[in-house]
Amino acid sequence: MTNVTVWNENRHEQKNPLVSEIYPNGIHGAIAQFLKAADLDVMTATLDEPKHGLTEEVLQKTDVLIWWGHLAHDEVQDEIVEKVKQRVLDGMGLIVLHSGHFSKVFKQLMGTSCDLKWREADDRERIWVIDPSHPIADGIGEYIELEKEEMYGEHFDIPAPDELIFTSWFEGGEVFRSGCVFKRGNGRIFYFRPGHETYPTYHNEQVQTVIKNAVNYVKPVQRKRPVYGNAQPLEVIAKK
Amino acid sequence: MTNVTVWNENRHEQKNPLVSEIYPNGIHGAIAQFLKAADLDVMTATLDEPKHGLTEEVLQKTDVLIWWGHLAHDEVQDEIVEKVKQRVLDGMGLIVLHSGHFSKVFKQLMGTSCDLKWREADDRERIWVIDPSHPIADGIGEYIELEKEEMYGEHFDIPAPDELIFTSWFEGGEVFRSGCVFKRGNGRIFYFRPGHETYPTYHNEQVQTVIKNAVNYVKPVQRKRPVYGNAQPLEVIAKK
Amino acid sequence: MTNVTVWNENRHEQKNPLVSEIYPNGIHGAIAQFLKAADLDVMTATLDEPKHGLTEEVLQKTDVLIWWGHLAHDEVQDEIVEKVKQRVLDGMGLIVLHSGHFSKVFKQLMGTSCDLKWREADDRERIWVIDPSHPIADGIGEYIELEKEEMYGEHFDIPAPDELIFTSWFEGGEVFRSGCVFKRGNGRIFYFRPGHETYPTYHNEQVQTVIKNAVNYVKPVQRKRPVYGNAQPLEVIAKK
Amino acid sequence: MTNVTVWNENRHEQKNPLVSEIYPNGIHGAIAQFLKAADLDVMTATLDEPKHGLTEEVLQKTDVLIWWGHLAHDEVQDEIVEKVKQRVLDGMGLIVLHSGHFSKVFKQLMGTSCDLKWREADDRERIWVIDPSHPIADGIGEYIELEKEEMYGEHFDIPAPDELIFTSWFEGGEVFRSGCVFKRGNGRIFYFRPGHETYPTYHNEQVQTVIKNAVNYVKPVQRKRPVYGNAQPLEVIAKK
Repeated sequence: MTNVTVWNENRHEQKNPLVSEIYPNGIHGAIAQFLKAADLDVMTATLDEPKHGLTEEVLQKTDVLIWWGHLAHDEVQDEIVEKVKQRVLDGMGLIVLHSGHFSKVFKQLMGTSCDLKWREADDRERIWVIDPSHPIADGIGEYIELEKEEMYGEHFDIPAPDELIFTSWFEGGEVFRSGCVFKRGNGRIFYFRPGHETYPTYHNEQVQTVIKNAVNYVKPVQRKRPVYGNAQPLEVIAKK
Repeated sequence: MTNVTVWNENRHEQKNPLVSEIYPNGIHGAIAQFLKAADLDVMTATLDEPKHGLTEEVLQKTDVLIWWGHLAHDEVQDEIVEKVKQRVLDGMGLIVLHSGHFSKVFKQLMGTSCDLKWREADDRERIWVIDPSHPIADGIGEYIELEKEEMYGEHFDIPAPDELIFTSWFEGGEVFRSGCVFKRGNGRIFYFRPGHETYPTYHNEQVQTVIKNAVNYVKPVQRKRPVYGNAQPLEVIAKK
Repeated sequence: MTNVTVWNENRHEQKNPLVSEIYPNGIHGAIAQFLKAADLDVMTATLDEPKHGLTEEVLQKTDVLIWWGHLAHDEVQDEIVEKVKQRVLDGMGLIVLHSGHFSKVFKQLMGTSCDLKWREADDRERIWVIDPSHPIADGIGEYIELEKEEMYGEHFDIPAPDELIFTSWFEGGEVFRSGCVFKRGNGRIFYFRPGHETYPTYHNEQVQTVIKNAVNYVKPVQRKRPVYGNAQPLEVIAKK
Repeated sequence: MTNVTVWNENRHEQKNPLVSEIYPNGIHGAIAQFLKAADLDVMTATLDEPKHGLTEEVLQKTDVLIWWGHLAHDEVQDEIVEKVKQRVLDGMGLIVLHSGHFSKVFKQLMGTSCDLKWREADDRERIWVIDPSHPIADGIGEYIELEKEEMYGEHFDIPAPDELIFTSWFEGGEVFRSGCVFKRGNGRIFYFRPGHETYPTYHNEQVQTVIKNAVNYVKPVQRKRPVYGNAQPLEVIAKK
C-alpha cells in the first residue's frame, strides 16, 4: 500500500471565501479525498501544524509527498526543507503542484530560479499530451481543457526535464511545459502546473487521473542509497 | 575575445611538495597557461584572496569560470557562492573540475548530493568518447588514457546530464560519467572528472584540448535573462 | 495479465552443442521459463516458423516482445520487421537483448547503425547501476557481475537513450551503455546488453530480475495512437 | 569556410503562382541568398536534377544540408536517401524545414512516423524560446511571431529531442515542438517547423537568424567515425 502525504499551505482557504467555497476541506482535503477513493493510504499536513506536519516519523513513512504552497513559501522552515529534500534523494516521490514551483524544496532540488510568467485573467488552458507512451498520461485523451485557469508562461526556468509529458496552450498567447518528471538521487519528482486556488481545478476528473497516475509513477523502488565514499578496488591494480 | 577566470583553492600547492613540484605555479597557473596559449583572455583567482578573488567586477567580466577545489569547500563564503550561481543562471559558463564535484556552487546548481565513490590507488583511467558529434570531444581520439589517476566511481549522484560526452573505465573495476554538460538558466556547465592534484593530469595535451573545447562550448550567448513575472496577454481573452 | 512473446533466432542452438547444452530448450525457452514463473502469460516464436512465428494475431495480442537474434538478422523478412515496428509505435513494449542490437527492427527504430566494438575473450563484465531511481534496477545491488561474457564496447552508435540505467565495465578496458530505455511513438523499448549464447547469462538470477522488471516497465499503457492529419481549429481564428 | 547545400523539391514554385511570386528564385534560392550574405559557401540542389543534385561529390563536400520537401517525398530515390543518411551519420549537419518532417531521410533517421496535426487556415504562430542558453536561439527575443502560418500540432511523433529549443503556440488552440536538435552518429540534425510555401516565412529576419545559427551549430566536428567491430583488449584478460 502506498502512503501518500498531501501537504498544503492552507492559507488562501482561511482568507478568501471564494477558495473555501470551492475547497471546503482545503485543497489538501480535496486531493486527499480522491486519492483515498483510489485505495491509497493518505494523510494530510499543513503549514501551521508543528513542524508543518512533517515530522521525522511522517516523512519516514511517506512514500509520496504532494506539495501545494503559494503565499508563505518563506515561512517553511529551512530545517524541514532540508529533511524533505533528503527524503526525496533517499527515494520518496514528490509531486509539486502549481505555485509550488516557487517552494524552497523545489527550487533547491532544481538548482535554478524556477521563475516563470503568470497572469490571473481567466485564460482557457489546454494541456496537450506530448508523451503518449507515459503512464502518467494513461487514460487522458489528446488534451485536458480547463475553461479558466491562471496562466503560467515560458520561459520556465527549470533544468530540461528528464521526461516532458504535457505542454499547455493558453488563450492569451503563451505555452508552458506543464507536466515534467525529474529524477534526483533515488527519488522521482513530478511537477504538474494546474491548480490555481480560485478555480475548481482539483475537482476536474482528468486532473485527478493525472495526479493518481503520478503517485503510482513516483513511488519509490525499494532500495538503499548507493554506497558512496572510499572504495576498495574490485580488481587488482598494477604497480606502476 | 572570451574572458576566462581560473579559480583554484590553492591549498594543496602550499602543503604538499609533491603537488607544488608538479604545478609550480599552482593548478590555476597551469590551466591559465595553456588557455592563454589558445588566445583566450585569462585571469586567475584563489580562495585566500579577498572575496576569494571573485569580486562583483571580476564575475561580471568573466565569460567562463573554471573551478578547482577540494580541501576547503566549506571555507568558500555563501555570499560568493550565491553570486557565482546567479552569474551562471545569467549566462556565465562554468567548468567544474575533478573534486569540484563537492563544491557548494556545483551542489547547489545540481540539487543533489553529488557524492561518488573514490580511491587513491594509482588506477589507470581510460576516458571513452560517448558522443562523437560533440564539439567538446573535437580532436580527441576514441579515448584519453591516463596512466595513474584517482578513481571516481558510480553511482555519481547528479541529475542525468543534458549531454553525456565521456565515460571513464578504471583499472580497479569501476565506471564513471566523466564528462557531462548541464544547462541551467541562461548558462551552461561542464563537469570534467580528471585532475587529482598529485598527478600531472593538466599537463596532458588531450586533457588540455578538452578544457579548451569546453571553454568555447560553455561561453555565453549574448542575451538577457527571460522576462519573468506578471505578463499582459498577447491575445484577447474571452469573457467567461 | 501481461502477454509476453519471446522471439529467438534459435540457430546457435541447432549448430553448437555448447549452446544447446547451456540452453537445452533454446534461449527462448530459458527466458520463457523464468517469465512464466513470474506469473506472466508467455509464448515463444522463432525464425524458422511460418512468418517467424509473428503472425498478425500473435503481434496483436503481444504486450511485450523480447528479441534475441544474431546469425540471421538478414533472414527476417522486411514485411515482418515493418509489422513489428508498427506495433511498437502503436504501444507494444520491446526488449532487445544482446546481439539484437543489429536486428533490422532495432536499427530501424533507432535510425543509426547500432554498431559497436566486440570481442569474444571471456572478459569479466560488471554492469553498474547508473539510475538507482529506476524500476528496471529494482532489486539489483550496485552492480551485476558476470564472470565471463562477450565484450561490447563504446562507441555504441545509438541515439542518446531516453533513460540510461546501466553501464558496463569490461576487464579488457572498455565501457558500454548496457541498459537503455528508448520511447518511440506509443511504445517503449529496453535494450539490455548481456547474453552471449556460449555463456549461461540468462540463468543468472539478477539478469532475470532485470528482464522481469523491464517487462513490467515497457508494457503498454492503454491508449490509441494520437490523432494525426488535418485538424479543425479548437479556437476561432481571426480573419487577417 | 562552411559549405552549405540547400535542397528543395522545387515543385510548388512551378505550379502555384502565389508561391513563385513570394519566392521568385524558389525557396532554395531565398534561403541560399541570406546564407551567402552571412559569408557561407552555398550551393543549391533540387529534385528534378540528375540524382536530385545530390551526387557523391556534392554530398562529400557538403558540411550542412538543408532540406525542404512536401509534395514529392516519394519521388526521392531510396539510393540517394541512403547516401544522405550515411553522410549524416558520418558527421554532415542536416537542417530539416517544415514539411520535410515527412521526408524519407528524416523518417529514417528518427525511426518513427514523424506524423502530426496540420491545418492551412492562416493561424497566427508564436514560436517561444524554451532554451535560452542555446546558440540556435542567439539573437532571438522571447518569441518569433508569424502573422500567418500553417498550423502543425502535437502529438508530433518524433523521439524526444536531445535539445528542445522552441515550442510554438497556434491561434487555433494547439502547441508544437518547433525547434528540435537530434544527434545521430557523428552528425547533428535540427528540425525547424515554420515555412509553409504560401507565406513569406523565409523572408522573416528572425527565421533567417535561426537558420544561420543552426548552420553554425550542426556543422561537423572534424573526426572520423569511431572504430567498430572486433577489438583487441587494452588490458590483460585473466584465464578463467
